[in-house]
Amino acid sequence: MHRGRRYVLTLSCPDRVGIVARVAAFIADRGGWIVEASHHSDAENGRFFLRQEVRADSLTVSYDELVAAFGPIAEEFGMEWRITDTAVRKRVVLMVSKQEHCLYDLLSRWQSGELDVEIPCVVSNHETLRGVVEWHGIPFHHVPADPADKQPHFDEVSRVLADAKPDCIVLARYMQILPPEVCSAHPGKIVNIHHSFLPSFVGARPYHQAYARGVKLIGATCHYVTPELDAGPIIEQDVIRIDHSDQVDDYVRYGKDIEKTVLARGLRFHLDDRVLVHGNKTVVFS
Amino acid sequence: MHRGRRYVLTLSCPDRVGIVARVAAFIADRGGWIVEASHHSDAENGRFFLRQEVRADSLTVSYDELVAAFGPIAEEFGMEWRITDTAVRKRVVLMVSKQEHCLYDLLSRWQSGELDVEIPCVVSNHETLRGVVEWHGIPFHHVPADPADKQPHFDEVSRVLADAKPDCIVLARYMQILPPEVCSAHPGKIVNIHHSFLPSFVGARPYHQAYARGVKLIGATCHYVTPELDAGPIIEQDVIRIDHSDQVDDYVRYGKDIEKTVLARGLRFHLDDRVLVHGNKTVVFS
Amino acid sequence: MHRGRRYVLTLSCPDRVGIVARVAAFIADRGGWIVEASHHSDAENGRFFLRQEVRADSLTVSYDELVAAFGPIAEEFGMEWRITDTAVRKRVVLMVSKQEHCLYDLLSRWQSGELDVEIPCVVSNHETLRGVVEWHGIPFHHVPADPADKQPHFDEVSRVLADAKPDCIVLARYMQILPPEVCSAHPGKIVNIHHSFLPSFVGARPYHQAYARGVKLIGATCHYVTPELDAGPIIEQDVIRIDHSDQVDDYVRYGKDIEKTVLARGLRFHLDDRVLVHGNKTVVFS
Amino acid sequence: MHRGRRYVLTLSCPDRVGIVARVAAFIADRGGWIVEASHHSDAENGRFFLRQEVRADSLTVSYDELVAAFGPIAEEFGMEWRITDTAVRKRVVLMVSKQEHCLYDLLSRWQSGELDVEIPCVVSNHETLRGVVEWHGIPFHHVPADPADKQPHFDEVSRVLADAKPDCIVLARYMQILPPEVCSAHPGKIVNIHHSFLPSFVGARPYHQAYARGVKLIGATCHYVTPELDAGPIIEQDVIRIDHSDQVDDYVRYGKDIEKTVLARGLRFHLDDRVLVHGNKTVVFS
Repeated sequence: MHRGRRYVLTLSCPDRVGIVARVAAFIADRGGWIVEASHHSDAENGRFFLRQEVRADSLTVSYDELVAAFGPIAEEFGMEWRITDTAVRKRVVLMVSKQEHCLYDLLSRWQSGELDVEIPCVVSNHETLRGVVEWHGIPFHHVPADPADKQPHFDEVSRVLADAKPDCIVLARYMQILPPEVCSAHPGKIVNIHHSFLPSFVGARPYHQAYARGVKLIGATCHYVTPELDAGPIIEQDVIRIDHSDQVDDYVRYGKDIEKTVLARGLRFHLDDRVLVHGNKTVVFS
Repeated sequence: MHRGRRYVLTLSCPDRVGIVARVAAFIADRGGWIVEASHHSDAENGRFFLRQEVRADSLTVSYDELVAAFGPIAEEFGMEWRITDTAVRKRVVLMVSKQEHCLYDLLSRWQSGELDVEIPCVVSNHETLRGVVEWHGIPFHHVPADPADKQPHFDEVSRVLADAKPDCIVLARYMQILPPEVCSAHPGKIVNIHHSFLPSFVGARPYHQAYARGVKLIGATCHYVTPELDAGPIIEQDVIRIDHSDQVDDYVRYGKDIEKTVLARGLRFHLDDRVLVHGNKTVVFS
Repeated sequence: MHRGRRYVLTLSCPDRVGIVARVAAFIADRGGWIVEASHHSDAENGRFFLRQEVRADSLTVSYDELVAAFGPIAEEFGMEWRITDTAVRKRVVLMVSKQEHCLYDLLSRWQSGELDVEIPCVVSNHETLRGVVEWHGIPFHHVPADPADKQPHFDEVSRVLADAKPDCIVLARYMQILPPEVCSAHPGKIVNIHHSFLPSFVGARPYHQAYARGVKLIGATCHYVTPELDAGPIIEQDVIRIDHSDQVDDYVRYGKDIEKTVLARGLRFHLDDRVLVHGNKTVVFS
Repeated sequence: MHRGRRYVLTLSCPDRVGIVARVAAFIADRGGWIVEASHHSDAENGRFFLRQEVRADSLTVSYDELVAAFGPIAEEFGMEWRITDTAVRKRVVLMVSKQEHCLYDLLSRWQSGELDVEIPCVVSNHETLRGVVEWHGIPFHHVPADPADKQPHFDEVSRVLADAKPDCIVLARYMQILPPEVCSAHPGKIVNIHHSFLPSFVGARPYHQAYARGVKLIGATCHYVTPELDAGPIIEQDVIRIDHSDQVDDYVRYGKDIEKTVLARGLRFHLDDRVLVHGNKTVVFS
């Protein structure tokens, strides 16, 4: 990345006086130059959230030393925390079906370096998109799904995901509902794009539902996948205006534009460690 | 209005070849200069919708003659139709509770002439807003509502509305659910602003519901009131972005801005005869 | 297209009574089923604009007979007009430089059939994007540009364009200023995406200009190319919010999302014959 | 305010290691509970910006002691800084002309307590809006402006402003260009709403300019007033979509909605000490 190597500290803990002072002193004592800092106090839940980006080359200690030294502070304050290193590229598995708009969009960002990750493979229940994926030099796994018995599909998907060791799994219009065992094997790592402005129009054929209700805007929602369908923590949403002259296939067409944009934004927030989950809600330090 | 007097023809009917030709010939034969024309063919339902604005001074016939002459065409094509005269100011009753944002917004538009209507009265279950209404020279009816028995309130509201002979009743954050008998006494004339992006968050305290779900945008919906709560045909909607740092009272504050804008737009569409209802959906020739 | 073959009539002429009646009768007399109709009266310039989509299979005459029969009406009313046939796919040449975001976006739409055109070739002053273009089976012409003398580049571009016989030329971040002779050889056919909200920030490095001025939104503009730089008729625009934490490279990244969306929308309007140009302005029947 | 009394520290200074640590320790040592914290490092200019809200009741020292104790730190780091007390209501003078939309909008917010300020007076070059201002119990100063010689107007305006001792002066569609001596008497305190998306359409009749250029969105800009016309630091902007069917008077009508919203947002940012100016740009900790 053009901005140089940084270590990204994210944490949340019960709120109290002195957290920022303690963390900031910890960083400053090791020469750390903070290039971006975001804080949030959730008054309702009494919880504090923090994200700080520190220039790696400003620190007098190594990454491992930094992590080790922070442990006691984290323990004292009861923090959930992590420190990531922007020099370590994340591994992102893409799961797709037949529609190409989200895949092309992500591949375009990946080609340009904007999406600066490893893509160990693309997984799909159809062969449709093999060509463009392989042209980009990315392995493509076709895992057919038998509508009468999807378990073999999900078993194979589980094996492929286990092999890929992903930091993140993107359901880029994958169109299958992941069973609980797959969800729970990758907690907080599965990012989905749902083609409605949740909580409106959960489940199948949301554009048809929107058309039937006569709404004047349609939307898309990027969220973490949990076992409950379309009910996970929301990362990002957006909408687009439609009118009475639009039919369902127009909704689909407009919707693609908002889906790929919302997915790309939400995924970026996730990969930049800008999303902190608490309960079923997210803090997004965008 | 600066654009001169116009007659506005709106109609819907089963779609078939030749409707536009017939209507356009009817207008042209009487010298009518069409300043705005909108058509919509609903392929799914096989229904056609039309709205045309004709300069009154271009016509060789009077309003009454125009209406009389159009009758046979309407009958032939099975049209639901009306012709309104922009020189006849509509009568709009406002119903409010304690919150002033929508009321001030409408009064500002009324003072400037943008909202070019008669306001026979404002009705409220609270005294709060009497002063500013009466300062504008508009009668204010305080009709208290007893939470234990609201029927007397609604009976009195019904009487006030019957006296006012409104073309339109605006629920400008009135905060009471109108009983079916009031709804059915003014079909297609009651316009409400609901403070959520319907169909999400129907009913009470939608901002609290939105906060609990963790959405990233909140919205407002202007719709016709029908006996089923918050389920009437939608006229207009819009949204505004919020984030994790916003609490429910911030939602309320942001929400006011979107509520008054959406209500004003939806009301204008209604008053300009730009909204044609079919089933539970609207065609809005904006 | 899923909606069946249609003939699209677009016209503009001096406004007067009876135009719609005459056109509608012409269509109806030949059995024409109008599936979409849009009209606009420009009161300031006294000019009338019309677009009608007619189902081809509803007409009792052929395309050629329809065109021939309409000639006398057009002459009588002094119309600029055309009738296009949606069964004839348009030929669209893409011109690119090194950036892939607009190209990938258009290719994705083309793969899915949403962008239902012939792409005879992609032209570029760099080799960068050859691979993905050729993988899609589209010829790629690399025409190098010598900064010291660009005339040979433009001469070769002119030859390639002449061979391609394009109905439309899309400058998808081509980054070169076309000389007047190329512009005038393809009047009303060259569509550009400029990475600012015109008329702000004409010319080079608009994101740097926007950063220097401290605006709170950045935009993109899809417009027809005329010999005057970035001054042609605007087809479509949109904006995206940025804030003080964003640097120029963030503007570039956000900007790409809005550029590709605005270009795709503007191009679709153009290809669907929804854009009527009058002077330096457009009527867009979206 | 519902959130209790807070002290708001805002500062900017040359960026270096340890600023946050020092400030956070200073607050924590006095028991300060930080309810909101925002930081920004401007890499290009090497400048650091900070805003922190501290609960007054958490501090072991008084406001005066806090301010006095911070002085040495500010000096050491070369800070521009201030600490404001949310219990001290700011004094805001409104300047208007004949148009009521921004005034009504601000009065509505003031009535509801959302705009929690003193309004010592409203100043206008017309009598038009006296009634509604005085009904709200606010003094109204009519200061006529002679187009042939505006100096007496500005002299009287200067006297009124000097008497009012404003913390902020809002040009709520005041429509006069303040002379340099008025601007320089209230540096950083005069907030204007300009009815275009600056830097497009500086000066008079921006909607006419927008119409002539054929843009597809119109906007409004809230900015600080400096002697150079419409060139001061931008606080907030937004846009609204228009199309070919809209005439200049439609632009004016749509524009009012965006003007009042943008002004209200920008003013709130200013009054909450969320805007830090550096050169001709703003950092807005929204």
